[in-house]
Amino acid sequence: MVGRVTAGIIAVGTELAIGQVLDTNSRYIAQRLSAVGCDVREVLVIPDDRVAMLRAFADFSSKYRITTITGGLGPTADDFTKEILLQLFGGKLVEDPATLQLVTERLAKRGLALTPRNAEQAMVPSSCEVLPNKLGTAPGMLFCQGANWVFSLPGVPFETEALVDEQVIPRVSRLSTGKPLQRVLKIYGIAESYLADRIASWEQRLAEHFSLAYLPGPEGIRLRIDSKEPGTPALQEELTSYVEELKDLIPNEFYGEGDETLPSVVGSLLKRKSATIATAESCTAGRLAEAITSVPGASDYYLGGLVTYGDRIKREQLGVKPDLLARFGAVSEEVAGAMAQGVMERLKAEYGIATTGLLGPGGDGSKTPVGTFYWAVASRVGVTTGRALLSSTRAVNAVRATYDALNGLRRVLIGCL
Amino acid sequence: MVGRVTAGIIAVGTELAIGQVLDTNSRYIAQRLSAVGCDVREVLVIPDDRVAMLRAFADFSSKYRITTITGGLGPTADDFTKEILLQLFGGKLVEDPATLQLVTERLAKRGLALTPRNAEQAMVPSSCEVLPNKLGTAPGMLFCQGANWVFSLPGVPFETEALVDEQVIPRVSRLSTGKPLQRVLKIYGIAESYLADRIASWEQRLAEHFSLAYLPGPEGIRLRIDSKEPGTPALQEELTSYVEELKDLIPNEFYGEGDETLPSVVGSLLKRKSATIATAESCTAGRLAEAITSVPGASDYYLGGLVTYGDRIKREQLGVKPDLLARFGAVSEEVAGAMAQGVMERLKAEYGIATTGLLGPGGDGSKTPVGTFYWAVASRVGVTTGRALLSSTRAVNAVRATYDALNGLRRVLIGCL
Repeated sequence: MVGRVTAGIIAVGTELAIGQVLDTNSRYIAQRLSAVGCDVREVLVIPDDRVAMLRAFADFSSKYRITTITGGLGPTADDFTKEILLQLFGGKLVEDPATLQLVTERLAKRGLALTPRNAEQAMVPSSCEVLPNKLGTAPGMLFCQGANWVFSLPGVPFETEALVDEQVIPRVSRLSTGKPLQRVLKIYGIAESYLADRIASWEQRLAEHFSLAYLPGPEGIRLRIDSKEPGTPALQEELTSYVEELKDLIPNEFYGEGDETLPSVVGSLLKRKSATIATAESCTAGRLAEAITSVPGASDYYLGGLVTYGDRIKREQLGVKPDLLARFGAVSEEVAGAMAQGVMERLKAEYGIATTGLLGPGGDGSKTPVGTFYWAVASRVGVTTGRALLSSTRAVNAVRATYDALNGLRRVLIGCL
Repeated sequence: MVGRVTAGIIAVGTELAIGQVLDTNSRYIAQRLSAVGCDVREVLVIPDDRVAMLRAFADFSSKYRITTITGGLGPTADDFTKEILLQLFGGKLVEDPATLQLVTERLAKRGLALTPRNAEQAMVPSSCEVLPNKLGTAPGMLFCQGANWVFSLPGVPFETEALVDEQVIPRVSRLSTGKPLQRVLKIYGIAESYLADRIASWEQRLAEHFSLAYLPGPEGIRLRIDSKEPGTPALQEELTSYVEELKDLIPNEFYGEGDETLPSVVGSLLKRKSATIATAESCTAGRLAEAITSVPGASDYYLGGLVTYGDRIKREQLGVKPDLLARFGAVSEEVAGAMAQGVMERLKAEYGIATTGLLGPGGDGSKTPVGTFYWAVASRVGVTTGRALLSSTRAVNAVRATYDALNGLRRVLIGCL
């Protein structure tokens, strides 16, 4: 795409470089910049090292129209982003009265007095424009290098995100030549190579000015179709017809687009039916409840649920019959079904959903193979169950089990199971 | 530190560069390489772009002793890491019989036949050493550039992690000049700038050959102390005495070291008491159960719990009295306490822990401010409660609420509340 605004993202922090902390800020910034049409060329993580910082700041600010730098602005001695920016862009440290006032007010609200350490946060290079930080003590800063912009932002994720949304994106949007054309289709229940075979002839027909990318993850596969040219209405229409053809090839596996998630899709289906749901979790131990309630407004359809880790709790709290547990074991289709029905009845919900499985690494002493997993969905009509053999780590298996169950619920709700 | 093995990490993928997918592989690799003494200098994310890939691969492999590249090895047309590696290191594509056999066996286990697309995964540059991938179809590869090593690894996280552990780390360990000396202290319940003030005189006394870093996050603050010199027994002893002094300055806030987490610390305390616990969650909706069960062996002390989203479920499933709900509202100390007691009694546990709060962004129509949160811990002796005013996004508030409750439980268990 001609004339796209180029962007580079730098995250500073030894804790990030050595992997002690996961850098989520860069992803957030990349997402936001891409959404307004920027071409993100590089994301770089470097340690708190003055030489590496100066080199990277100088390199990026000369190459890219937009550079963002997160981190290194804290009140402690291991933070020196401000010092390097001063070195690169000149000026001297001056007190920013607005920042000082913001910091004082924030502390006062929590009943705390301003300390000298906090007051230092209001000292900024005279060469920058201050970007007020409503959620923390370190302000954002904007520097200009010729036509190029360098945004320095604090590294605390919710502060970074607020400053990106309120200060960076509005400014960058004004430079942008238009949103890139893109569709992202969400797919669950088919492996990447089989999906590629299923849609191979469609992919071959796809016009050259579109590109296709496969993004597999525990929440299924995302298929991203990008246009390489600026989005015109004709191109938009062409893309729409490709997407409709694609959906017809994967009618049961396609579940949503863009920001839609399995929990949000399931939530919309429940809302449309004015139905409520309750959860009974063994191996997923709260993850299903968490996923369902991650959707704003989930209280409209989610009543609550039980985490029934041991057999006794399954019997006493969900009414699972002792002989079912004895005959089939806790990890069985029968017990999953009884759990789903039990929670539906006890919480008086229209639907009950349950999980039971052996996520590993160890087994339960029975013959059930590690990785065995069952989900069940109960309604007034009956019980639907599904099975999977999970083969990854405990943590990944837990996520897959959660999504498998949600996808089962989705298919029950749309009537394709 | 003189003579440390330098390392650079590259992650390839447009989905990573535009922020559609969070890059967790680089963090994993950085962690593992650092743990065996490597000096991770750069972590770089670039899109699936042949020019950017070739430039970055050439640059890193000439600069760093160890380079890792993840991604771009999938069976679909948008993956071309192998092509670029062939261009850079020479050779031609040849079939690797061992990989072909592994892939065929993997598919057979799932009842699937080998497709041509899968078979292509066994074609590797003749210039590399193949690193077998037991969990997926794309093998890892090792290339040499003079004395420098370049590892190419698939991008699916659990495959990457297994290859790093089984193939990369054993080789790199042999190069390493010894583990760096490091201690990481975990602290909960004090803000970064107040912690810095509290330990200021200790920090000033800290010898120059140690460096201190503050890593704040929702799970509290990690204080990392690194030695800049190779770890000798004398240095080790010196560090230990610094750490003991530091702990004495924050007796209630210090909760663990290294890989210890609030859930693992609480788990150890419960195990030591041979006590069981049950959860009753309103606003955290499963996160508390999830956190507790993230620790292997949690079934020794965790019985299960309830997610009671609505008032009716709180009354019916936990026995919270209607007049408590009417007088104080669901978000109150009184209701939190009744929930903790209710779940302790109903599940016959030694301890009950409960959460209730308004995580935002919207309120509940009452006068309760958004962000109000209560936790409660019940035991046969009585009920302990705590309160917080959370001021971040819904998702961050949920994590903080979960950790606040766990920290409350920890303090109850160690008898400092």
